[in-house]
Amino acid sequence: MNDEPTLGDATAWWSTGVTRIEPGLIELRGFPIQDLIGRAGFISTVWLMVRGELPSEREAALLEATMIASVDHGPQAPSIASARMAITCGVGINSAMANGVNTLGDVHGGAGQQCVQLLRDAQGLRDESGLDADAAARRVVDEHRASRRHVPGFGHRFHPVDPRRDALLDLVSAAVADGVLEGRFLELGLALERQVEAALGRPLPINIDGISAIVYAELGFDPELARGLFVLARSVGILAHAWEERETGRRIKGPLPPPLLADYIGPMTRPVPGEVPSRPRP
Amino acid sequence: MNDEPTLGDATAWWSTGVTRIEPGLIELRGFPIQDLIGRAGFISTVWLMVRGELPSEREAALLEATMIASVDHGPQAPSIASARMAITCGVGINSAMANGVNTLGDVHGGAGQQCVQLLRDAQGLRDESGLDADAAARRVVDEHRASRRHVPGFGHRFHPVDPRRDALLDLVSAAVADGVLEGRFLELGLALERQVEAALGRPLPINIDGISAIVYAELGFDPELARGLFVLARSVGILAHAWEERETGRRIKGPLPPPLLADYIGPMTRPVPGEVPSRPRP
Amino acid sequence: MNDEPTLGDATAWWSTGVTRIEPGLIELRGFPIQDLIGRAGFISTVWLMVRGELPSEREAALLEATMIASVDHGPQAPSIASARMAITCGVGINSAMANGVNTLGDVHGGAGQQCVQLLRDAQGLRDESGLDADAAARRVVDEHRASRRHVPGFGHRFHPVDPRRDALLDLVSAAVADGVLEGRFLELGLALERQVEAALGRPLPINIDGISAIVYAELGFDPELARGLFVLARSVGILAHAWEERETGRRIKGPLPPPLLADYIGPMTRPVPGEVPSRPRP
Amino acid sequence: MNDEPTLGDATAWWSTGVTRIEPGLIELRGFPIQDLIGRAGFISTVWLMVRGELPSEREAALLEATMIASVDHGPQAPSIASARMAITCGVGINSAMANGVNTLGDVHGGAGQQCVQLLRDAQGLRDESGLDADAAARRVVDEHRASRRHVPGFGHRFHPVDPRRDALLDLVSAAVADGVLEGRFLELGLALERQVEAALGRPLPINIDGISAIVYAELGFDPELARGLFVLARSVGILAHAWEERETGRRIKGPLPPPLLADYIGPMTRPVPGEVPSRPRP
Repeated sequence: MNDEPTLGDATAWWSTGVTRIEPGLIELRGFPIQDLIGRAGFISTVWLMVRGELPSEREAALLEATMIASVDHGPQAPSIASARMAITCGVGINSAMANGVNTLGDVHGGAGQQCVQLLRDAQGLRDESGLDADAAARRVVDEHRASRRHVPGFGHRFHPVDPRRDALLDLVSAAVADGVLEGRFLELGLALERQVEAALGRPLPINIDGISAIVYAELGFDPELARGLFVLARSVGILAHAWEERETGRRIKGPLPPPLLADYIGPMTRPVPGEVPSRPRP
Repeated sequence: MNDEPTLGDATAWWSTGVTRIEPGLIELRGFPIQDLIGRAGFISTVWLMVRGELPSEREAALLEATMIASVDHGPQAPSIASARMAITCGVGINSAMANGVNTLGDVHGGAGQQCVQLLRDAQGLRDESGLDADAAARRVVDEHRASRRHVPGFGHRFHPVDPRRDALLDLVSAAVADGVLEGRFLELGLALERQVEAALGRPLPINIDGISAIVYAELGFDPELARGLFVLARSVGILAHAWEERETGRRIKGPLPPPLLADYIGPMTRPVPGEVPSRPRP
Repeated sequence: MNDEPTLGDATAWWSTGVTRIEPGLIELRGFPIQDLIGRAGFISTVWLMVRGELPSEREAALLEATMIASVDHGPQAPSIASARMAITCGVGINSAMANGVNTLGDVHGGAGQQCVQLLRDAQGLRDESGLDADAAARRVVDEHRASRRHVPGFGHRFHPVDPRRDALLDLVSAAVADGVLEGRFLELGLALERQVEAALGRPLPINIDGISAIVYAELGFDPELARGLFVLARSVGILAHAWEERETGRRIKGPLPPPLLADYIGPMTRPVPGEVPSRPRP
Repeated sequence: MNDEPTLGDATAWWSTGVTRIEPGLIELRGFPIQDLIGRAGFISTVWLMVRGELPSEREAALLEATMIASVDHGPQAPSIASARMAITCGVGINSAMANGVNTLGDVHGGAGQQCVQLLRDAQGLRDESGLDADAAARRVVDEHRASRRHVPGFGHRFHPVDPRRDALLDLVSAAVADGVLEGRFLELGLALERQVEAALGRPLPINIDGISAIVYAELGFDPELARGLFVLARSVGILAHAWEERETGRRIKGPLPPPLLADYIGPMTRPVPGEVPSRPRP
C-alpha cells in the first residue's frame, strides 16, 4: 500500500476469488449460478465454495455423511441452549442462530479441528521418522499424557460407544478399500484409538470429533475448515431447536424453570461504607 | 409450573421433540443417526430437522436448488464483510461466522421471510374474497404504495434481472406442471411481478428473495423458517469468505485500506470546560 | 453517489462526527482525549459520545444512578446465562459478552425502550388533546388492554415491589423539585402506574424498565438509546458473571447439570424409508 | 455430582456469588441495590462486580481514566465498522453492539490482556532472579525477538506517540508517588519501552494497550479482566457509532459505497461438468 492511495486500493482491499458479481451475473468460483441451480448438490456447492473446485461423487458423499452426523446432539449442548434462550428474548432467528454458532469455540466446537491437526502432525512424524502408525500414535499419546492434555477426538461423556463412529468408519473404510482415499489418516486414527486404550487400560473409542477429523483429513481439509464445516452442520440443529422454542411462545427463557433461582454463595447483606468512591456530587 | 418445583420441572423445561439422546443412542426425529448417515441427503436432513418428516425427492430437490441459489453474493454484503473483518481480529472461525449470521436481520436477511408472509396474506385474501391472482396482487401492491412500503421480493440494486430468478422459476414451474406443487403461490408471485410493473410503469423483476419465497411458500415453510433456511445457505458463503480472508493473514482488517481514514464531520478541537461533571475527586 | 466514484466517496462512506483521528491526535466530539482523561467521568463520557455534548452534574448523576440500577439481575436472566455458558466453550471473554449482549432483544432488553416511546406518545397525546396526565394515561392503558398488549415498564415476575423503583424515583423527584428536570414524564409514569392498578384492580408497580424509561425520557434520550444504555449497564453484570464462570474452570456448561438430560417428547425409534431423498449415489 | 441428581443440583449448577435475588431484594456482592443507587459511582460498581469489593477513591479514579481512554478510536476499527454495518441490516442496537464486541478478539482487543500477562511474567522473573527492571525487560524483549513475536503494548500504526500514553502515565506516576500503587509494573513498563527502543534502534512508545496494562496490573486485575474492561469501555464507542449510523437511515451498509464492487481475482466463467456430484435425481 503506497502513501497515496487510489480508488483501486479500496476495491482491491475487498478483493475475492470466491464469487464474481456484475450486473446480471453471479458466478461461484467461475461457475454461473444458474448452471449450478438444479444440477449441483448443496454439499458439492459447500465444497466448491471452500475448496475452489467441485468434488468427486464419492468425496461429496463422504462430506455429506460426515456433516449429517454432526447436525445435533440435543439441548444439553450450550450452543443449542443458547439459541433456544436467545429466540425467546425478542431477536430474529438469525441472531438466535448467531449465539449458538458463537459458542462453538475451541472447547465446544474445536475438537475436530484439533484432531485434524493431531493427525497431520502424527503423519508428519511418520514421514520424518519412518515410524509405523502405532509407534507414531504411541508417541503422540505419551506426549499428551506427559503434558496432561487429553487426546482430542476420543471418548464421550454420554456415549460408551458413539453410534456415529461405526457408521462413518464403514464409509471411510469402504472409500479407502476402493482407492478413493489414501487411508493414511484412517490408519493413524485407529492406531491412536488402540494406543489411547493401551495407555488408559480401558477403551476410549473414537468419538464424532475424531471420526469427522479422519474424514476431513483424508479429504484434504485444513484443520480450521473442519471447525467451519462442523459449524455449518450444527447450524441445522441450532435452527431446528430455535424454531421449536419459538413455537412454544416462551418469553425470556432462562436456564431454570421459574420460580427456581440460582443458589447464592456470596456475602450476605452489608452496609455501603459512608465514603463511596466516585459518588456523583449533589 | 406449581410453587414446589421438582427435578422433573428442570428436565421438562428443556424438553424437545427434535433429537433423542441416551447413552449409545442418537435419534433425529425418531430416526437412528446411523441409519441416516450414508443414506439421507444433507438437505433432506435439514428438512427433517425443521419439519419433523423426510421430504419427497422432488421437495428435497427444490429446497436444495433454492439454498444453493442463496449461498453468496460477494463481500459487498455486510454479512460477508463482517465475517471477513472479524476473522482478522483473533477470533475463531465460529465467531467470525456468528457475526456474519447475526447481520442477516429484517433488512438484510428478512425479505424472503416477509415475502412468504406477503404471499400467505395475499392467498388468504383470495380465499376470503374470491379475487383472482392479479386482482389480489393489485390490492397488495396498492396497499404497499399507499403506506409507502416497498413490496418485498422484487427488484435488485445490482441486477436488472437476477440470474437466479429464471433458474429457480423453471424448477418451480416444472414442479407445478408435474403436480408436485399446487402452484397457488407461484401464480401469485408472477401476478405480483406484473402488478408491481404496472404500478411503477417499469419492470421490477422477482429477485432472489421473491423467488425463494415462492418456493418456500409452495413447500409449506413458515415465513420465519424461510429466514432460517436463508441463514443456513448464506452461512456457506460466510464460511468461504472468512476462510479466504484468514488465508490472507491480515490482522485487524477495517473497511478502508490503511492509511485511509474516515472523513470527520463533527466539531473541531475545543477545550474541556473547567467544571467537568462526575470528575473523580483527587 | 454519482456513477464515477472517487476515493473521497470511500472515506465519506465512513464519515463520522463522533471521533476525530489523526496521527498523534484523538478527539471525542472535539475534546482532546488527553483533556478528558482524569477530568471527565465515565458516565459523562458516555453521555458525550451518544449526545454530542457533556451533561450537567445533575444530569450525569441521574444517568449514573440509572445505569447502576441496571447492571445485573442474576443468572436466571438468559443474557447472563448465555455469557456464562459461552465462556466455558473456549471463546474469549469478548465473545461470551457478545452472546449476552445479543440476547437483550425486544423482549429481554427492549421494555425500557418501549416505555420511553410510550411516554413520548402519551405526552404527544397530551400536547394535542390537552388531556391531564391521568386521562392520557387511562387512554393509553385502555388501548393496550383493547389490543391485549401489556403496558411496558410495569410489574415484575419476581418482585412485588422492585427495590430499584423507590431509589430512582426519589432521585428523579428531587431533580424535578429542583427544576433540573421538567417532570412531565415523571408525572405521566406515576399516572400510568395509577391507571394500570385501576384497570387491573391490583397494584402493578413501575419496574426497573419503567423507572429507567422515566429518567431517560426526562433526560431527552431517544427510545432506542434507552436500550443502548441498558446494554452498556447490563454488560457489567455480563462481564462479572462470565468471569465468575471462567474461574470455576467448567468446560461446555449446558443448562442442566450432568447427567441430567432434557425430556424427549418426539417420535420414538422408526426405520428410515427404503427410498431416502437426495441420497448420494454410490 | 452423584448419579441421582436432586433439584438442588440444578440450582447449585447456576450458583453465583455476584448478585443475590429474592422477591423484593436485589444485592450486588452483598450491598442492597437501593443503597448503591445515588451513592456509588458507575466505575466503582464495575470494580465491585468483578472484584467483589468497592475500590478506594484513587483506585476508582485510575480505572475511570483508563476506561475513558479506551472508549473509541474511530470507524477504521473493525469493531466499530461491524456495529455500524449491522445496525443498517435490521437488527436491534443490542445485536449491532454484540457484533462490535465479538470482534474484540485476541488480535483486536487482546493486546492489553497480553501485556498484563507479560508484565506479570516479567515481575515473576524479577522475583525469582533478582534482576533489575531493565535486565528483566531486556530478557523479555530478546525472547520475543528470538521467537519473532512483537512485544504487546508498544507502537501504533497511526500515532507516532499516542496522546493517551502521557495522560495516563501522569496519573499512574502520581499514584505511585503518593503510595497508592506499588509501581513495580510501571517501572517494568517503562523499562520495556527503553529496551524495545534499544533493540529496534528507534522509539516504539507505550501504546494505549500498554499503558492500560500497566494500570490494570498495578490495580491487581487478572489479565483476562483487562480484556473484559476494555470491552466495556469500547462498548461506549460501539454504541455511539451504531447510533450515529442508525440516524443516517442507511440500509444494508457494506464496506464500499455503491456502486463500488470488490475486485474479483478468481477463475473466470467456466462450464459446469456434465456429471455434477450429488445432483438431486429428477
